[in-house]
Amino acid sequence: MLRACAVNTYHFVMADSGWPGCAKSLKGVILDMCGVLYDSGEGDGVAIQGSIEAVKKLKASDLKLRFCTNETQATREKFVAKLQRLGFDISVSEVFSPAPAAVAVLKERGLRPHLLVYDALLPEFDSVDKSKPNCVVIGDASEKFSYQNLNEAFRVLIGLEKPVLFSLGQGRYYKETDGLKLDVGVFMKALEYACDLEAEVIGKPSRTFFQSVLNDMGLQPHEVVMIGDDLVNDVGGAQHCGMKGVQVRTGKYRPSDERHPTVTADGTVDNLAQAADMILNQRKH
Amino acid sequence: MLRACAVNTYHFVMADSGWPGCAKSLKGVILDMCGVLYDSGEGDGVAIQGSIEAVKKLKASDLKLRFCTNETQATREKFVAKLQRLGFDISVSEVFSPAPAAVAVLKERGLRPHLLVYDALLPEFDSVDKSKPNCVVIGDASEKFSYQNLNEAFRVLIGLEKPVLFSLGQGRYYKETDGLKLDVGVFMKALEYACDLEAEVIGKPSRTFFQSVLNDMGLQPHEVVMIGDDLVNDVGGAQHCGMKGVQVRTGKYRPSDERHPTVTADGTVDNLAQAADMILNQRKH
Repeated sequence: MLRACAVNTYHFVMADSGWPGCAKSLKGVILDMCGVLYDSGEGDGVAIQGSIEAVKKLKASDLKLRFCTNETQATREKFVAKLQRLGFDISVSEVFSPAPAAVAVLKERGLRPHLLVYDALLPEFDSVDKSKPNCVVIGDASEKFSYQNLNEAFRVLIGLEKPVLFSLGQGRYYKETDGLKLDVGVFMKALEYACDLEAEVIGKPSRTFFQSVLNDMGLQPHEVVMIGDDLVNDVGGAQHCGMKGVQVRTGKYRPSDERHPTVTADGTVDNLAQAADMILNQRKH
Repeated sequence: MLRACAVNTYHFVMADSGWPGCAKSLKGVILDMCGVLYDSGEGDGVAIQGSIEAVKKLKASDLKLRFCTNETQATREKFVAKLQRLGFDISVSEVFSPAPAAVAVLKERGLRPHLLVYDALLPEFDSVDKSKPNCVVIGDASEKFSYQNLNEAFRVLIGLEKPVLFSLGQGRYYKETDGLKLDVGVFMKALEYACDLEAEVIGKPSRTFFQSVLNDMGLQPHEVVMIGDDLVNDVGGAQHCGMKGVQVRTGKYRPSDERHPTVTADGTVDNLAQAADMILNQRKH
């Protein structure tokens, strides 16, 4: 933790339980993607300096590595292909995203969704019956969050005896190369208020979602650190599950995050490259 | 109260304190406009059956009459001209709406707004300095609530040291001739969540707003009944100020309003015509 590292005694006092002291006992790392690996924007966006190399180093270590994103702008296949074009060594099976998790929930509960998601995400829902919708699913839809589309989703919900709204994540905003942009959580809150209901969140910071990643890694929460740029959804969500949560000062990070009233990161680092170096250096000693 | 009127003893038991028994001691009536006088929609919308005549009758009585709207789709002048075209006997000085109230607050506090409102409402803000905005004002903006415009308002707020958001009303939805439509409150909640702040509501159900109408009438709250189609903002807001609140079964009324967990109208009537007849008949006896 950079802030704490300025205090020279920190490593010695906190070495076993704090960050980066805990790195010695780590068995796995979960990485958020947008704002940690890359900044989104026009085209494929841009890789954040040092992050491609950091992923390589972590993969070359004995740590288990997974990627956990609330990305819902495209299918996992297309999303991973974009990351690969940017230079990242990532495969689809390592990436956890909300849409496949939502499909599982819809099928389990026999629900037929009205979808307000990016067109590019629609193929994830190909296997789901969408006739006579009895619930609404929203994902980050950016420009598709028009008044008309929001009103359409609202009318479906308000027409149901028991309206059910699923939100693929609950982020407030994210950073693109041209600035901050409103995320799906904002429109979830809008529809919650319009229909006087509480949405079910699928994705970070849902405990169910994080647990599915831990299950896949075969690890206990205390053996894993989550690294993200979103203090509440990445760091707070991971901590709520018993993991360590480290925030990077890239992506949507804002200095005020370090004075947040309810969530305090186990560590705050300049970027993923620094986080990876700190973890791997600790493990050598 | 129609539900209670089905119980024959009601008038006798509640005649002095309940509705419509209280009509005898009434000195003033405040009418909501959209959903009570008319349904909005293409062009001027349509007058609700019997409402033009009801306004005439109330005006011809010894009751003071005011109109209180969260309407922010046009200036008061244009709005009143529309009502006059529909056949209502209404003048600008009888109508209370949020935009002029907002202008007073902005000037008092030296705030320069970024406006996300209907273009037709902009002239209300002609006298306000809008350079280098240090707050955001949103009104019902319908199709102008595009992702791009919401994001622009968000960026203004998130860039401020102390973000201030004013919302002209906090309605969830209203009814137009082609169905229910999302109202400004929904987008207020969206920006509140995005920026982690609480908006200041100007308009119904704000106590300050209702009090300004009572002041203009020169009446005490217990001498006045508010008639509206919005259970929470019209009826609940008025009751919170000490007035009686009666709901009409027109406009955005939904049967579930009569089972609302926290707000119970003093009376529920089919429409304004029935409310006016009940009030005026009670006063004769």
